[in-house]
Amino acid sequence: MSEASTTEPTADDLFGPDNLPYGVYTTPDAPERPRIGVRLGDRVLDAGAAAGLLNLLEAPDAGLLTAPSLDPLLAAGRPAWSRVRAALRTAVTDPDRLARVTEAGLLLPLSGVTMRLPFTVADYVDFYSSEHHATNVGRLFRPDGEPLTPNWKHLPIGYHGRAGTVVVSGTPVVRPGGQRRPPGAEEPVFGPSTRLDIEAEVGFVVGTPSRLGEAVPMDGFRDHVFGLCLLNDWSARDVQAWEYVPLGPFLGKSFATSVAAWITPLEALEEARTAPPERTHPLLPYLDDTAPGARDDGPGHGYDLRITVRLNGEIIAEPPFSAMYWTAAQQLAHLTVNGASLRTGDLYASGTVSGPEPHQLGCLLELTRNGRDPITGGFGKRTFLEDGDEVTLTAWAPGPGGGRIGLGEVTGRIEPAG
Amino acid sequence: MSEASTTEPTADDLFGPDNLPYGVYTTPDAPERPRIGVRLGDRVLDAGAAAGLLNLLEAPDAGLLTAPSLDPLLAAGRPAWSRVRAALRTAVTDPDRLARVTEAGLLLPLSGVTMRLPFTVADYVDFYSSEHHATNVGRLFRPDGEPLTPNWKHLPIGYHGRAGTVVVSGTPVVRPGGQRRPPGAEEPVFGPSTRLDIEAEVGFVVGTPSRLGEAVPMDGFRDHVFGLCLLNDWSARDVQAWEYVPLGPFLGKSFATSVAAWITPLEALEEARTAPPERTHPLLPYLDDTAPGARDDGPGHGYDLRITVRLNGEIIAEPPFSAMYWTAAQQLAHLTVNGASLRTGDLYASGTVSGPEPHQLGCLLELTRNGRDPITGGFGKRTFLEDGDEVTLTAWAPGPGGGRIGLGEVTGRIEPAG
Repeated sequence: MSEASTTEPTADDLFGPDNLPYGVYTTPDAPERPRIGVRLGDRVLDAGAAAGLLNLLEAPDAGLLTAPSLDPLLAAGRPAWSRVRAALRTAVTDPDRLARVTEAGLLLPLSGVTMRLPFTVADYVDFYSSEHHATNVGRLFRPDGEPLTPNWKHLPIGYHGRAGTVVVSGTPVVRPGGQRRPPGAEEPVFGPSTRLDIEAEVGFVVGTPSRLGEAVPMDGFRDHVFGLCLLNDWSARDVQAWEYVPLGPFLGKSFATSVAAWITPLEALEEARTAPPERTHPLLPYLDDTAPGARDDGPGHGYDLRITVRLNGEIIAEPPFSAMYWTAAQQLAHLTVNGASLRTGDLYASGTVSGPEPHQLGCLLELTRNGRDPITGGFGKRTFLEDGDEVTLTAWAPGPGGGRIGLGEVTGRIEPAG
Repeated sequence: MSEASTTEPTADDLFGPDNLPYGVYTTPDAPERPRIGVRLGDRVLDAGAAAGLLNLLEAPDAGLLTAPSLDPLLAAGRPAWSRVRAALRTAVTDPDRLARVTEAGLLLPLSGVTMRLPFTVADYVDFYSSEHHATNVGRLFRPDGEPLTPNWKHLPIGYHGRAGTVVVSGTPVVRPGGQRRPPGAEEPVFGPSTRLDIEAEVGFVVGTPSRLGEAVPMDGFRDHVFGLCLLNDWSARDVQAWEYVPLGPFLGKSFATSVAAWITPLEALEEARTAPPERTHPLLPYLDDTAPGARDDGPGHGYDLRITVRLNGEIIAEPPFSAMYWTAAQQLAHLTVNGASLRTGDLYASGTVSGPEPHQLGCLLELTRNGRDPITGGFGKRTFLEDGDEVTLTAWAPGPGGGRIGLGEVTGRIEPAG
C-alpha cells in the first residue's frame, strides 16, 4: 500500500475560514438539544449563538442558524445561503469578533461534541458515474462482453436507495444478514454477508425544491444544490449479486449508507471546479455540457476532490473525483427530466469514485479484483471487510490562494452480525 | 372488454361501519387546515371533532385524530390503533351518537371535500410479487429463456422507488419525457414517453418503526403495518427498457406513483385473510410461511382483494390479489432481514397484481402483449395510454357477515407532456 503522497495538512489548513462546512452537534450537558455548528480547524462554532451574539444576521436569516437541523437553511435558497455564509465568515475572520465568540464559549473543541445527522434525508439516489469503476465492474462480471452497457455513455445510470438508513459518520455498521448463492450451488443460503465492501463516493445535498412536472436544467445546479459531503455506500456484494437481476440493488445496499457530519457548501468549492473528462459520445441536449453556453459560469461542473480511503488507518486508495464522467449537474438534470420533483434534503451520490490507476479504486471489489488478489498491509490480508475493520474516507480540494478545503471525514467500523 | 361481473354495490355497502378507512381532507372554507376523516358511505366523518364531541377518547389517543395527517396515529402503535378504531366504530354504530355528529355537521358529503395525501411517505419500496406478472413479463422480454429469474422463488424481489413523487388519487399525471432507444436504432432519442403504462398494485403503510440492525419477523407484520391502500405505479416502459440494466428501474417509474386517499386498517380486513398460493420451492426460515407456527394467528398473510381496473370508465382487468405469491408479511421480513430499519410512513407495494386469466392482468404491457395486441373498447384501441386517458382502480374484500369492505379508489388522468 502506498504512503500518503504529501505532508499531512493540519485541521487548520483544511478547515480554515474559506471552508466553513455546516454540521449539527450536541454537547454532553444537552444531548437533546442539537445545534448548528460550523467547523473551524478542530473546533466547532455554535453558529446560531455566535450570529446572535454578534448581531450578524437579520430575521429571517438569523432563525436559520438556531434551528435544530440544517433543514430550514437548506430550504432557504441560494441568496440566503450566501448571506449566512458571509456573516459567518465575518465572525471568524474579524479578530475582535472571533475573540468575543471565543470568550463567550461558543468555539468548542470538536472532541467534546457529538456530531448528528445534519439534515433530514428526503429521497436518496445513488448514481454509477465513474467510467473507470463501471468498466472495472463490467470486466469482472461480464469478462466476455462489452464492459459498459449500451446506455452508459448516454445517461448517468442511477437508482433509488434507502433514505431511512443513511447514518452519520461514526455510526457502527452491523454486518448484514441476507441470502446469497454460493458459487456452484443451486439453492441460496442465509447468513451474515461474507463479501462486505465499501464504496467511496461524494453525496450532493439538495436545498431548493422543485415542482412536480418541472425539469431542472444543468444550469439550475447551483440554485438547487446546497453542498456536498463524503459518503460511503456500504455494499454486501454476495447479497447484491443474488438479488439484483432484474430490478437492481436492494438489500445489498439498504442496511447502511454513511455520510460525513459536515456539509461543505458549493460556495466553498469554486476553486475546485474543473472540466469533466472529454465526452466520447454526443449527448442529448439536456445533458450536453459541451454545448455553447453550457459552461458560461465556469470551467464545468466537475470538482477536483482528492479522496483518500483508509482501512484501519492505512491508506488503501486515493480516488480522484475529477475523473468522474458524469457531473452532479448532469445527474440533477437527468434525475428531474421526467418531471420528478426535488425536495429539500434529497441526497444523491456520485457512485463509486475510481480513477484510471491501480491505487485509485474506490471499492474492495475493484482493489482485490472481486476477491482474487487480496490487498495487504499492517491490517494483514483483506479481500472484503472483517469484523472490527474501520474504514475512513477523507478528501481535500484546492481552495483560494493555494489553500486547501477539507471535506469532513466519513468513518465507520464493522460490528459482527447480530 | 368484459362487463362488471356483479351488481355494482353501493357506497354504503362498501364503506359501512365495519370498514372505516382513514384519510385526510380539507374543506373549501379552510383549504389550509387538513383534518383526519373516516369514510362512511359517500360521506366523511370529521374524526377528531366527532371523537371530541362524543368524548370517546382520552389523552393521548384523542390527539391522534386532531392532527393534520395520519402520521401521529401511524406512529402510535397497534394498541392505540385498536382503541381509536373501536371509538370511531361506536360513534357511527350507536344511533344517538351518530345523530349528534350529524347534527353537529361533522358528517360531510365526500363530493364537498378535497382529499390530501394522508401521511408523510418515508421510504417507498416496490416489490414484484405476482408470479403471473413476473412470468408474463419474462416471456415477453426473454422469449427464449426461463421466464422467472433464478432468485424469484427464493425471495420477494423489490427495489426502492421515489417517495417524493407519491401523489394522492386524483392528481393529474403529466406524461414524462425521457430517453428511449427506438427499435433497431443505435442511439437514443429524447421525447415524451410513447409507452406509458399502469401497474395495479396494493400498498402497505408502516406505522410502528423498528431499530437499525433489527430484523422484523413475519409475525411482526400486524404490529408494524397499519393498513393498506390501492396504488398505481405509473410506468414509462420505453424509458424503463433503455435505462434499467444494470441497476433497475429509475426514471421510468419516478415521475409519479398514485395512492388512494383512504388507508384501510388491517383490522378491517380480518375476514379477507387467506392462504397464499402453494409454495413450490422450499423457503429459507425467515420467509417460510408453511413452517409450524407460521400461521398460528390465521389462515396466512394473503388477502382476498378483488381489484377492478377501469380505463375511461370501462373495465379492462380484474386482478385478484389472492393470487400473489409473496405476502406482505414476507415482504416486510425480507425488507428488514439485513437490519434495515423501518420508519413510520414507509410505504411498500406489492408489485403489479396479475392473475392466471387473460382478464386478470394488472398492466397494459401484459394486457396488450407489449403493444402487439391492442385492447379495444368504447375508448377505441389502446396499446399504451393516450393523453386524456383516465385510469381508476377500485377493489373490495370480503367483510364480516357476508358484507364487503371497499378499498378507496385510486384514479389519475394523463396530461400531455409539458
